[in-house]
Amino acid sequence: MEKSLDELAGLLDGTVIGDGNIRISGISSLDKAKAGDLTFLANPRYASKVASSLASAVLIPKGVPCPGKSCIEVANPYLAFAKTLTCFLESPAHPGVVLEGAHVGKNVRMGKDVTVYPGAYVGNDVTLGDRVVLYPGVVLYDMVAVGNDVTLHANVCVRERCRIGNRVIVHPGAVIGGDGFGYAPDGAQWYKIPQVGIVIIEDDVEIGSNSTIDRAALDVTRIGRGTKIDNLVMVAHNCVIGEDCVFAGQVGIAGSTRVGNHVTLAGQVGIVGHVKVGNNVTIGAKSAIASDAPDNVQLSGIPAYPHKDWLKVSAITPRLPELRKNVAALEKKIRELEEKIASLA
Amino acid sequence: MEKSLDELAGLLDGTVIGDGNIRISGISSLDKAKAGDLTFLANPRYASKVASSLASAVLIPKGVPCPGKSCIEVANPYLAFAKTLTCFLESPAHPGVVLEGAHVGKNVRMGKDVTVYPGAYVGNDVTLGDRVVLYPGVVLYDMVAVGNDVTLHANVCVRERCRIGNRVIVHPGAVIGGDGFGYAPDGAQWYKIPQVGIVIIEDDVEIGSNSTIDRAALDVTRIGRGTKIDNLVMVAHNCVIGEDCVFAGQVGIAGSTRVGNHVTLAGQVGIVGHVKVGNNVTIGAKSAIASDAPDNVQLSGIPAYPHKDWLKVSAITPRLPELRKNVAALEKKIRELEEKIASLA
Amino acid sequence: MEKSLDELAGLLDGTVIGDGNIRISGISSLDKAKAGDLTFLANPRYASKVASSLASAVLIPKGVPCPGKSCIEVANPYLAFAKTLTCFLESPAHPGVVLEGAHVGKNVRMGKDVTVYPGAYVGNDVTLGDRVVLYPGVVLYDMVAVGNDVTLHANVCVRERCRIGNRVIVHPGAVIGGDGFGYAPDGAQWYKIPQVGIVIIEDDVEIGSNSTIDRAALDVTRIGRGTKIDNLVMVAHNCVIGEDCVFAGQVGIAGSTRVGNHVTLAGQVGIVGHVKVGNNVTIGAKSAIASDAPDNVQLSGIPAYPHKDWLKVSAITPRLPELRKNVAALEKKIRELEEKIASLA
Repeated sequence: MEKSLDELAGLLDGTVIGDGNIRISGISSLDKAKAGDLTFLANPRYASKVASSLASAVLIPKGVPCPGKSCIEVANPYLAFAKTLTCFLESPAHPGVVLEGAHVGKNVRMGKDVTVYPGAYVGNDVTLGDRVVLYPGVVLYDMVAVGNDVTLHANVCVRERCRIGNRVIVHPGAVIGGDGFGYAPDGAQWYKIPQVGIVIIEDDVEIGSNSTIDRAALDVTRIGRGTKIDNLVMVAHNCVIGEDCVFAGQVGIAGSTRVGNHVTLAGQVGIVGHVKVGNNVTIGAKSAIASDAPDNVQLSGIPAYPHKDWLKVSAITPRLPELRKNVAALEKKIRELEEKIASLA
Repeated sequence: MEKSLDELAGLLDGTVIGDGNIRISGISSLDKAKAGDLTFLANPRYASKVASSLASAVLIPKGVPCPGKSCIEVANPYLAFAKTLTCFLESPAHPGVVLEGAHVGKNVRMGKDVTVYPGAYVGNDVTLGDRVVLYPGVVLYDMVAVGNDVTLHANVCVRERCRIGNRVIVHPGAVIGGDGFGYAPDGAQWYKIPQVGIVIIEDDVEIGSNSTIDRAALDVTRIGRGTKIDNLVMVAHNCVIGEDCVFAGQVGIAGSTRVGNHVTLAGQVGIVGHVKVGNNVTIGAKSAIASDAPDNVQLSGIPAYPHKDWLKVSAITPRLPELRKNVAALEKKIRELEEKIASLA
Repeated sequence: MEKSLDELAGLLDGTVIGDGNIRISGISSLDKAKAGDLTFLANPRYASKVASSLASAVLIPKGVPCPGKSCIEVANPYLAFAKTLTCFLESPAHPGVVLEGAHVGKNVRMGKDVTVYPGAYVGNDVTLGDRVVLYPGVVLYDMVAVGNDVTLHANVCVRERCRIGNRVIVHPGAVIGGDGFGYAPDGAQWYKIPQVGIVIIEDDVEIGSNSTIDRAALDVTRIGRGTKIDNLVMVAHNCVIGEDCVFAGQVGIAGSTRVGNHVTLAGQVGIVGHVKVGNNVTIGAKSAIASDAPDNVQLSGIPAYPHKDWLKVSAITPRLPELRKNVAALEKKIRELEEKIASLA
């Protein structure tokens, strides 16, 4: 597939500077681009590399001088790069049928062009929207509902009655709707509280490899529209996660916690149960949220406090032995002063 | 299914106050209960909501005044709630046979009413007790032994020779008996130590989604009776875990560590290898246990120390910059005092 | 299988002291060894147990006095133990064919003695070397390439075009080549950056249960020769990991980070994205690497600093409340001194 620079500029909401008829057939980095490729200058520091790049044209940020090649000027070259990459992407062609070796239960409603690969299992009373792709090893328990344009990669499991929206991608091995971790003490032993709720994954969510989203005890664990979850993340039962959040790898959120919209959790963050995190909150890597967090804050630490304070504390912590020595020296000096003063008095 | 309030009180070891003939068909929260439901008052703060609830009866703690509805008075309403929920639960009906599309190897001994779903794999010389359920994608390697009333959810893997007790539940994607992580240095490279031991999962254990319990190098990795393990937990080779423990999500325990009975590990806790943790120990979230811990302690921190000290330290840590400033101010004042004293002498 | 002590000494590059004709049929610990077994004395502390062991012979470190049994003297008894264990190991016998119930796609090239178990799925245009074993539930997407003597355990997923070297072992549930976690902000929402790169796993690598190695955005995520990765580890897109590294359980490495050779990461370590870690670096458990690390350092802490300093800081931290009290006491004393001096002047 080829597109002219003019066509691409239209798709990217950008402005061509130079020859809009140039034919583009791919996108690559400054170093690796070849003739026919579009490349991109995300960081003006690398402007000097543009001249020597073999690329046929360049995506540049608005206002950066055009460096001797035809260009598309855009507001956000990184986003424009992503969109161009998507445009030239050859998506895998799925056959759009249930293949031999797949299991499909009773009373399954299927949309158009659904692909069920060999070794996938679809339980009874499941609903699948249009263009759903179930890779090998996917297991949908009974009464699961899946929207349109959903891809469930190999060995994803969705347990009974859970519901998945449109344009959701779940990466290999993720588990949606496993039992929440709930027990009541019964003397020395633990009595299992049946987990009869469900999980709802809203539209445009992406869930990383081997992550686990537990079903609610009674009600719903919810992942809000557009939220992106990385690998090996744990969301416990009854959590309600807002829209357009980003959770990096190995994040863990304990039960019944509510997270607002546009919340960013860096890698290995933990949040305790039963707290409320506001909107537009950013938590630094490896931090622990142990109480409610208001809107619009940046927190770090175990437990977390304002990130700018954490930076200062982090600089001081390795020097605690020195601080303690200084205090001990002061104690000695004060004893000496006390003696001197006593001798003067 | 319906039960009278009297019947339920019998099951729950409680006392009816009011009309024991009321018919109950389900259980729900104060807010969501409808006619025919039992509801529960776990927290006396919400007593005022009881009158307006549509529930037909209420579980109440002993000694709390009965709020104008028929009640069952119980010692622990949360436990009673869990038991009632279990009582009304419609468990999935399994066909109790090996379904088409399942693989069962040679010399497999099976109890009564065993269900093997399509896509499950049972190796040779495996033993399965009564009423075992193997969901799609479950893989049992050769010579695995499984007790009665065990449910292995989708894509669970149990490797060769591992043994699972009675009434065990393993959630989707968990791995029992993967190789322990053992290598001997051989010059610059690592020589793999064959992991020829096994895992034994005792009765009434529950293991969360995508958790991994490694087989021992030579001997046994053991999870004690009644212990409950959440998602994405790692128990390394040769660990011996006691009874009735609770390990929250993303806990990791390194090799050859021994954990006592009734030990609670909060989320993301790590324990180093080759240590011994006593009975009735509680470790705070994200903490690291780096040495032996005696019985009956509560620890937090990296590395961990008494939890009540950790609370104080956590309050001080964000104010370290202030502490350092105070020390610097003292140093200045002492220099001034020294000068003054020198001038006086 | 039996070997004479002389034969074993040859294999282990050791020296027999005593009767080289003794027949050995297994290896076990001092306590559990029976007649016919070799045992090993890794720690001279246990020398007194040798006499009472039922073992027929003992592996001893060079220079340790021979304790009344025939011995093989070796440089590294732990390594010799591992090699002897391997020598007596009965590896599972695989049939070396594609079994019924396995799916093999079009245009798959297979070496000699390849075993594909029921329920494994091999996509189109896949290449498998000699003696590859694919356990049930393994899913290889299209165009995957696998070298010789590779074992992929149950439910391992390798996504399209990823390449796996020779003698690689991947444990159950691990995911190779899942999408990297890359999004460009597009107003309030996140635009997915297609992840069109691959993963290359070099020779002699081992990857633990349920670990995830993400494919690169454009290029290659690489795990270097001989590196050993434990369970539930996350390696993000575009990372380049060196040779002979050891990553313990639940380690997480963010995107585009480069790790040198012989790097040891203890359990639950995190490394941020876009940094460079040198060769022969050791990072303590639960630590966070937030910036470049040079060769030959030992670091701990969040964020990390030299391990020997961390040990000191860790000893002081629990006593911060005391330090703060001491500083407050000093402040009081200084005020008193100031008053006294004022009265003297």
